[in-house]
Amino acid sequence: MLACPDRPGLIATVSGFLAEAGLNIVDVDQHSTAAGRFFMRMVFDSPGTAERDALEERFAREIAAPFEMDHSFNESAIRKRVVVMVSREDHCLSDLLWRRRNDHLGGDIVAVISNHEDLRSEVEAVGLPFHHVPVSRETKEEAERRALELIGDVDLLVLARYMQILSPTFLEALGTPAINIHHSFLPAFVGADPYARAHERGVKLIGATAHYVTAELDAGPIIDQDVVRVGHEDEVADLVRIGRDVERLVLARAVTAHLEDRVLLDGGRTVVF
Amino acid sequence: MLACPDRPGLIATVSGFLAEAGLNIVDVDQHSTAAGRFFMRMVFDSPGTAERDALEERFAREIAAPFEMDHSFNESAIRKRVVVMVSREDHCLSDLLWRRRNDHLGGDIVAVISNHEDLRSEVEAVGLPFHHVPVSRETKEEAERRALELIGDVDLLVLARYMQILSPTFLEALGTPAINIHHSFLPAFVGADPYARAHERGVKLIGATAHYVTAELDAGPIIDQDVVRVGHEDEVADLVRIGRDVERLVLARAVTAHLEDRVLLDGGRTVVF
Amino acid sequence: MLACPDRPGLIATVSGFLAEAGLNIVDVDQHSTAAGRFFMRMVFDSPGTAERDALEERFAREIAAPFEMDHSFNESAIRKRVVVMVSREDHCLSDLLWRRRNDHLGGDIVAVISNHEDLRSEVEAVGLPFHHVPVSRETKEEAERRALELIGDVDLLVLARYMQILSPTFLEALGTPAINIHHSFLPAFVGADPYARAHERGVKLIGATAHYVTAELDAGPIIDQDVVRVGHEDEVADLVRIGRDVERLVLARAVTAHLEDRVLLDGGRTVVF
Amino acid sequence: MLACPDRPGLIATVSGFLAEAGLNIVDVDQHSTAAGRFFMRMVFDSPGTAERDALEERFAREIAAPFEMDHSFNESAIRKRVVVMVSREDHCLSDLLWRRRNDHLGGDIVAVISNHEDLRSEVEAVGLPFHHVPVSRETKEEAERRALELIGDVDLLVLARYMQILSPTFLEALGTPAINIHHSFLPAFVGADPYARAHERGVKLIGATAHYVTAELDAGPIIDQDVVRVGHEDEVADLVRIGRDVERLVLARAVTAHLEDRVLLDGGRTVVF
Repeated sequence: MLACPDRPGLIATVSGFLAEAGLNIVDVDQHSTAAGRFFMRMVFDSPGTAERDALEERFAREIAAPFEMDHSFNESAIRKRVVVMVSREDHCLSDLLWRRRNDHLGGDIVAVISNHEDLRSEVEAVGLPFHHVPVSRETKEEAERRALELIGDVDLLVLARYMQILSPTFLEALGTPAINIHHSFLPAFVGADPYARAHERGVKLIGATAHYVTAELDAGPIIDQDVVRVGHEDEVADLVRIGRDVERLVLARAVTAHLEDRVLLDGGRTVVF
Repeated sequence: MLACPDRPGLIATVSGFLAEAGLNIVDVDQHSTAAGRFFMRMVFDSPGTAERDALEERFAREIAAPFEMDHSFNESAIRKRVVVMVSREDHCLSDLLWRRRNDHLGGDIVAVISNHEDLRSEVEAVGLPFHHVPVSRETKEEAERRALELIGDVDLLVLARYMQILSPTFLEALGTPAINIHHSFLPAFVGADPYARAHERGVKLIGATAHYVTAELDAGPIIDQDVVRVGHEDEVADLVRIGRDVERLVLARAVTAHLEDRVLLDGGRTVVF
Repeated sequence: MLACPDRPGLIATVSGFLAEAGLNIVDVDQHSTAAGRFFMRMVFDSPGTAERDALEERFAREIAAPFEMDHSFNESAIRKRVVVMVSREDHCLSDLLWRRRNDHLGGDIVAVISNHEDLRSEVEAVGLPFHHVPVSRETKEEAERRALELIGDVDLLVLARYMQILSPTFLEALGTPAINIHHSFLPAFVGADPYARAHERGVKLIGATAHYVTAELDAGPIIDQDVVRVGHEDEVADLVRIGRDVERLVLARAVTAHLEDRVLLDGGRTVVF
Repeated sequence: MLACPDRPGLIATVSGFLAEAGLNIVDVDQHSTAAGRFFMRMVFDSPGTAERDALEERFAREIAAPFEMDHSFNESAIRKRVVVMVSREDHCLSDLLWRRRNDHLGGDIVAVISNHEDLRSEVEAVGLPFHHVPVSRETKEEAERRALELIGDVDLLVLARYMQILSPTFLEALGTPAINIHHSFLPAFVGADPYARAHERGVKLIGATAHYVTAELDAGPIIDQDVVRVGHEDEVADLVRIGRDVERLVLARAVTAHLEDRVLLDGGRTVVF
């Protein structure tokens, strides 16, 4: 995956480099923005561990540097490690665990952390470690430190209806992307109680948004969103119930896209191949 | 159609009243809110013009008054009169004219008013009067007065991408409901340039909202909304183009629901039967 | 719930009967077909166990008989009992179990029966009995007898991707409705391997259909259906995976509608209030 | 656009060829099927008319022949010519004419042919020639001959609810692709009266399918499909009315995709980039 200023010859240059190295390209997605930025994802046969380092080094020097590319090589055979944080509602977690059981996720959940004990048995029943890290106003700093230790070295943090706001300090120390599911069609209803506010406004569709977590609340790059129709007969509790089916699907799609290396950042927007 | 405080016996009382009057009920929709308000729409055979007034008077006295009902009787055989206001974009207007030709609207468009000349030929080609009422900052008050004269006595004003904000004075003098189509999924992107802002935020769905016009911009009761999926490859111009298909369908559905007497107001929300 | 030949006065008659009995109607849905059949669902306060029998008896005599009504009284406080049959795929079962845990189903699953052992641990982990009833061509008759004994006296049988065809003898002996989920948008792709056939035909949407089971394969009355977009990049295995999200939602919606007494039969069609 | 047996090096080979010719690739889409076929669409800067022939000749010899490619070069600056055939219903035609007015189609409608006079004024009002070619059982052969003459040399024939079956002789003589809109979700309800049959079967969604016309009725490669939810309250006439909104959108999307050279054939399926 790579992103760089758009200019003529990028596709031919990169595919020529790989062809010369004897690597067959099996998939290519590319996108150029009106603002002049170029994004590309190429899937090619692995060169083998031995030659991989040399190849990457040569690519960095001969292609990436002169073209001012941000790029990364990802070995699809190496499965990404994921930690899930959750509070009391189990719909997103249950859905991720079901996909894990059917190997639909494209990565491995290695642990679940929660600020409540409610979902311990569900997590332990499938053989995953469950860590209870309670959070109060006074203990938040300490709790985030503890969570960071437990998370350790992973590729992705998933907030599957984790109802605490993570501090900028935490996010910086985390050093890995985090995906959150917000239970509204962002940018509508940023912040608390989106279903109550959706009901009050009388919207005819409710939604869910999966986005990368940034320091600003519910303002990170959107990976996926979806909506479902509701009516005047639906009270707030109905919206909560109906919304669960959208939240879990949207989060699962976003997590899978990320774990399959199909998401690139374009400033505050995403390119999802 | 009626709305009143919820209490036991409302359905039986009203249906009993109509049965006693020898009127067959062919359709009934009813809704009670958690906040304790009751809404009902009953369709029944017409009593004939002669007896209608007596019936309405008796209903008002015997039922509506004691139950504190807001209610209205509507004769479906009397077609509602509609004026459409539009600026330069023709997608919503064209769609309404197509439905008019196929008699799908449930009412009659009697005139089109525009602050531009662009769509005159399209309107006159189908035999409808087209009035050009240009608006500038200086002439706005005069233009609104002129529009009010041209609108005259109608049942509904439709703003089919009319790009001027109507003053509270105009709305009050209008004395009839107005439906606007806003090219975003409200309450996201209230105000100007919603597609440009949707693109900047990187949303994955764009939407359209049909709502009753109130003095506060884009804050009136929502009648219908819908969305369509977009991707990173879609620039602002693409969103504008793709959005047109949603805007025209949502506006048409809302206008039809209103003209078929299927929309009731519940404060800032709607009940759509 | 009731169905009868359409004629004037039905709504007033039934609501009058209930009002006279001092019962408050809280919800009414009604539908008349072009073919002249009338359907109604009324929700009203319970008369209490003592008076219920007398009321039902009086209704049968005074209203149902003269109007040739099929009708039923259902006490919403009495939760319906459900048995689930499943084979190897767990997506529909897992979804139903998640809804059961959150009490979204509107009824109680009392047992799970499978012709395979695969899902035993998932079922027993949530404290439900799991019965293994293997089926082969030779043992089918005996297996169906055994299943009938295990099912016993329930209100609904759910086939949550149970991959055996149930015999007419079984269905007759069952004496209670059964809902099946078929992994296509019926009537397209009746029978085996619908995803393989959908791929071969090159459809751009795949679907799922929940229907009542009748003696004719995949021909029973449809309760709910939905679809999801697929593309040329999706091979059969992708359709299978993508389809799971639709199958489980459609089945859950249909089961919930049935358990909430919102489905009536209109010949080979359903009325879903 | 090209299609050929899949083998290593195809992307690099083609992009290398274009790079050598000094042509910048601005967009690439590619797809490999499990059955071993490779599809690619590359958009690149035009070489200019003078050099184009030499380039195409060299590509055919050096690349297409050894790789057994089916391929075509399309100059996006040369707008494709389209003839529309229609019977009495105007929704698809009106929609295409509206897109033409807004230049959304990606091609030029040059004439409309109908077996009825009904839509003459609508077509002539926008300055397009309208040809009335009545068809009866006896005159069908002669009518098809007349239609072929009127169609002449075009790039696409669009059947926008043309209710006559075209003979294999006609299709062969036509020598250019034809796109039809069928008012069902194929392969459900092939043939006549799909809405009546959808109503009888009690489906909960109705659909529309745009496909290339082949000698076998409604069996050609599907380009696009979509559905819309309906309910028990919708009689056949409602399905007809509701379905129109899906039919016109699906046909328009398919026609646009074809005119933008985004559709390739993979046997009886399509690849839509």
